[in-house]
Amino acid sequence: MSKMNTAPVSGTRDFLPLDVLRRDYVIATIERVYQSYGFEPLETPALERLDTLLGKYGEEGDQLIFRALKRGQELQRVLDDAPTENTLADAGLRYDLTVPLARVVAEYRHRLPRIFKRYQIQPVYRADRPAKGRYREFYQCDVDIVGSASQTVEAEVIGAVAQILRDLGFAGPLGAGPNPSDQSEEPAGFAVRLNHRGVLRGLMEIAGVPAALEGSALVAIDKLDKIGLDGVRRELDERGLDLAAAALLLGTMAEAPDTNAAVLAWLNELLEPSEAGRQGAADLRKVVEYAAYGPAAPYLRVDPYLTRGLSYYTGPVFEIAFPGFSGSGGGGGRYDNLIGMFSGQNVPACGFSLGLERILLLMEERGLFPARLAGQPQALVTRGDERTTGASLALAQRLRVGGLRVDLYPDADGYGKQFKYATGRGIRYALLLGARELEAAVVAVKDLDSGAQEDVPSGEIVSWLNERV
Amino acid sequence: MSKMNTAPVSGTRDFLPLDVLRRDYVIATIERVYQSYGFEPLETPALERLDTLLGKYGEEGDQLIFRALKRGQELQRVLDDAPTENTLADAGLRYDLTVPLARVVAEYRHRLPRIFKRYQIQPVYRADRPAKGRYREFYQCDVDIVGSASQTVEAEVIGAVAQILRDLGFAGPLGAGPNPSDQSEEPAGFAVRLNHRGVLRGLMEIAGVPAALEGSALVAIDKLDKIGLDGVRRELDERGLDLAAAALLLGTMAEAPDTNAAVLAWLNELLEPSEAGRQGAADLRKVVEYAAYGPAAPYLRVDPYLTRGLSYYTGPVFEIAFPGFSGSGGGGGRYDNLIGMFSGQNVPACGFSLGLERILLLMEERGLFPARLAGQPQALVTRGDERTTGASLALAQRLRVGGLRVDLYPDADGYGKQFKYATGRGIRYALLLGARELEAAVVAVKDLDSGAQEDVPSGEIVSWLNERV
Repeated sequence: MSKMNTAPVSGTRDFLPLDVLRRDYVIATIERVYQSYGFEPLETPALERLDTLLGKYGEEGDQLIFRALKRGQELQRVLDDAPTENTLADAGLRYDLTVPLARVVAEYRHRLPRIFKRYQIQPVYRADRPAKGRYREFYQCDVDIVGSASQTVEAEVIGAVAQILRDLGFAGPLGAGPNPSDQSEEPAGFAVRLNHRGVLRGLMEIAGVPAALEGSALVAIDKLDKIGLDGVRRELDERGLDLAAAALLLGTMAEAPDTNAAVLAWLNELLEPSEAGRQGAADLRKVVEYAAYGPAAPYLRVDPYLTRGLSYYTGPVFEIAFPGFSGSGGGGGRYDNLIGMFSGQNVPACGFSLGLERILLLMEERGLFPARLAGQPQALVTRGDERTTGASLALAQRLRVGGLRVDLYPDADGYGKQFKYATGRGIRYALLLGARELEAAVVAVKDLDSGAQEDVPSGEIVSWLNERV
Repeated sequence: MSKMNTAPVSGTRDFLPLDVLRRDYVIATIERVYQSYGFEPLETPALERLDTLLGKYGEEGDQLIFRALKRGQELQRVLDDAPTENTLADAGLRYDLTVPLARVVAEYRHRLPRIFKRYQIQPVYRADRPAKGRYREFYQCDVDIVGSASQTVEAEVIGAVAQILRDLGFAGPLGAGPNPSDQSEEPAGFAVRLNHRGVLRGLMEIAGVPAALEGSALVAIDKLDKIGLDGVRRELDERGLDLAAAALLLGTMAEAPDTNAAVLAWLNELLEPSEAGRQGAADLRKVVEYAAYGPAAPYLRVDPYLTRGLSYYTGPVFEIAFPGFSGSGGGGGRYDNLIGMFSGQNVPACGFSLGLERILLLMEERGLFPARLAGQPQALVTRGDERTTGASLALAQRLRVGGLRVDLYPDADGYGKQFKYATGRGIRYALLLGARELEAAVVAVKDLDSGAQEDVPSGEIVSWLNERV
C-alpha cells in the first residue's frame, strides 16, 4: 500500500477536535446572544444557481466563485460545442450569506414574519489565492433584520454584537441598567465604529466632490487605516479628484471632534446645507441614542472616516475595531435596495457579519478560551482483563446516565499506556476496576493531575465525580 | 425590477427557522450523547481532492461526485486542449464522512490519540437525480472509533446510537443498571439489527457458494426487505449462482431461530466447519454480550440476513430498523482495511452513520418534537410612540440580562399588528410599556394564548417571566 496525498485541499482546513470545540464555544456564545435578541436561525444550501451568484460581488468576485461542473449527458453536450467557463457549470458555491438571505426573503416572503430577524452561521467559499489568514472555505456569522427602516434595528444589531464580544471576554461584565451617557468608565477591549452613508455623501457635497467620483473617493477613504492621510490624498488625486476638493474634504473630516456628542453636534451644523447629510446626521444621532440603552453603550465611536467597502449600503454603517489590531472584527450596515434585486420590490434591511476567524485568532492571543472546554470527556474508565470487562462497561453506563462524559478504554493494555492516553486527551480522572476493587465494592480513582489515587465506594462514584468536574 | 428565479438549486433545500431549530434539537441530542461516550468532534472541508474521492464509492459513486471547475489560466489551458470531465476539475464536494475520516487519520496520525473517537455532523453532496426523500445536499451524522479491534468498540457505538434514539423519544426512559438478559419487556420503538461479515462468509462456504460470487450474493440478500425470499432466489439465479447452492443458502438462513441466545447457539454449531464463520460467530457473541450492559440491551436483534451494502466492512455490521418503516435509520460496522487505502498501513476501525433525514421524518410523524423549541423568543417588547422607545429598549435589555429570549418590535405600528406578529412567531407574551405603564411603574403583559392582560410591577417583570417560560 502506498501513501496518498492526504493534506486538505489548498486553502481549506481540517479542524481537529480541539479546534472544533473552540469554534463551537464561540459559535454557541454567538447563537445564545442572537437568540436572546429574538433572532432565528436560517440555513441555505452550499450550491446556488450561477445566475443568483454572478453580478453580485463585482467583476473580481465573479472570478472567485467556485463553479460546479455539469455532469453526464448535459456535460457531453457542452463539451461537443466549444465549452466556456459559463456553459460548463450550472451552479456555484455560496460566496457569502447576504445574497442567500436576499434570495430566501424573495422566495418565501409570504411565509416569513413581516419583520424577519435571522442569523446564519455557515461556511462560504472563495477561489482566492490562499495566503496567511486567507482561506478558500471559512465561516461567516451573519445577523440581519429585514422589513423595518427604524433605527431601533441598528441599535439591536449593534447591541447583540457588543454583547457577544463582552461574553467572549473582550471586556468586563455587563451591568443590567441602561447607561446612555457613560462612554469612558470601562477600559475598551473593542470599539464599535459608526458612520452613515448620508453623512459621507453630505461631506462630499460640501467639499464639491462630483457625484460621479463619490464611489472612487469612498474607496480611497476606506484605506485610511492602511495608507494614512497622505496616502488617501495621493489616491484621491490618482482617481481624478481635483486637489482643492480633496483638500477640502480631508481638511473638513480632520476637524471632527473626539467625543460622540461633540461629533454629532458638529455634523449637525456642518451638514445643514446638504439634504442627504442632514438626514444622515439625524439617523446617526438616533442610532447612538437607541444603542446607548444596550450593551454597546461604552463602545460606540462615531467616526466620519468609516466607509465600509461594500457598495450596497444605504444608511448607517458600523465596524468592530480592536485596539492594537489592524483590520476589523466584522462590520455591517443598512442596505435598503439589495433584496429588491431578487424580489423586484425593495425591502429595508440591516445586518452585521462577525469576523469569526479573526475573533478566534484574538481569543487565542489574549488567552480567552476556558482551560477545559465543554464537550471534552471528564473521566476514563480503564480496562482490566476479560473478567472485569463487563463491570467496566456497566460502570461507564452508570456514569453516563449520571450526566458525566466518560470514555472507555477498549484494549487490555497496561495501565501506564491507558493513563498516557487519558492525559493526552486532557482527561483528569482515570477509574480502575480490577478484581480487588470489585471485591471491595469500590472504584479506584487516579487523579492524573496530582498523581494521587483513592478508593471511592462504588455507590458514591457518580456524585463524587459530579462534585469534582 | 424583475423577479429572478429564487428557488434553491434542484435537490437542495432552504431550512427556514423552524426547520433549523428542529434539526438543531436533534443534532444537540446526538452531540450530547456522543460526547457522553467520550467522542470528540471533527470537521473537514467541503472540497476534497478528486483523487481522494474517486475510486472509493464504486463506478456509480464516481458519477455522483460534484466536481469543482478549474479557474482562470489553468482552466484556459485545459479548454485549449480537448477537455474532459477529469481534466476540467481539480476538486470535488465531499460524498460522505468516512473517506474524509480515513484521510484525516492518515494525515495526522502522530497528533491524534491512539484510540481516536470522533463524531462528525456535516452536509455531504451527491449529484443524484432528485426525488422524494433523495437530496443532493444532506447531513450525515457519523461516529467512529479508530485504533482498536476490541468488541467493546462495537458495544460503545451501538450503545451511543441506542441512547440517542431513546433520548429523542423513540422508546421509554433508560434504567441505570446493566440488563444483559432482558430482551422483551419494553415495547420496541426500534431495533438494532446485528450480523457479521464472517458469519455471512461462513454461511456461503457451507452452502457451497463460490468465493467469486460472494459479493453478488450479498447484494441479492441485501434486498430481502424489498423483494422477499422469492425475489432474492430469482436474483441469485440471475447472478449466476446455481440453484442448489442458492436453495441451500436460503434454506439454511430461513432456519435461524428467533431469540438472540438461540440464534447465537445455532450459528456456533452450524458454522463450526468454517474458520471465517467460527470467528464471526464468536465476535458476534462478544458484541452482544458487551452491548447488553448498555442502553441497546432491549433492542438487539441478531439477524443473519443483514448484509449492509458497502463492500468495505470486514467484521460486525449493524443497522437501525423502525417497526412499520421500510428502509433503515442508519447503519455501520467494522472496516479494518479502509484507512490503509490512505495511510499505507491498516488501522482497525468501526463506525456508524445515523440517518438524520429519516429520523427527522419519523419524529415529525410520531409527534416527538417539543411544542416550543429551545431558541425561540419567549417575549415581545412592543413599541409605543417615540416618547417611550427608550424605556422599551431599556426593558428589553433588562430582560435579556435576566436570561430571557426577547424580541423587540421595531416600528410604531398598532398593537393589533404587533400582537399578530408575535403570534406568528410563536411568542406567548407581549409586553406593553406606554405612558400609563411608565407612570405606574408597571409593565402590561398580554398572554397571547389566553388573551388575558395584567400589570406586573416593573421591578418584578424579569422573575415573573422567568417563572412562566
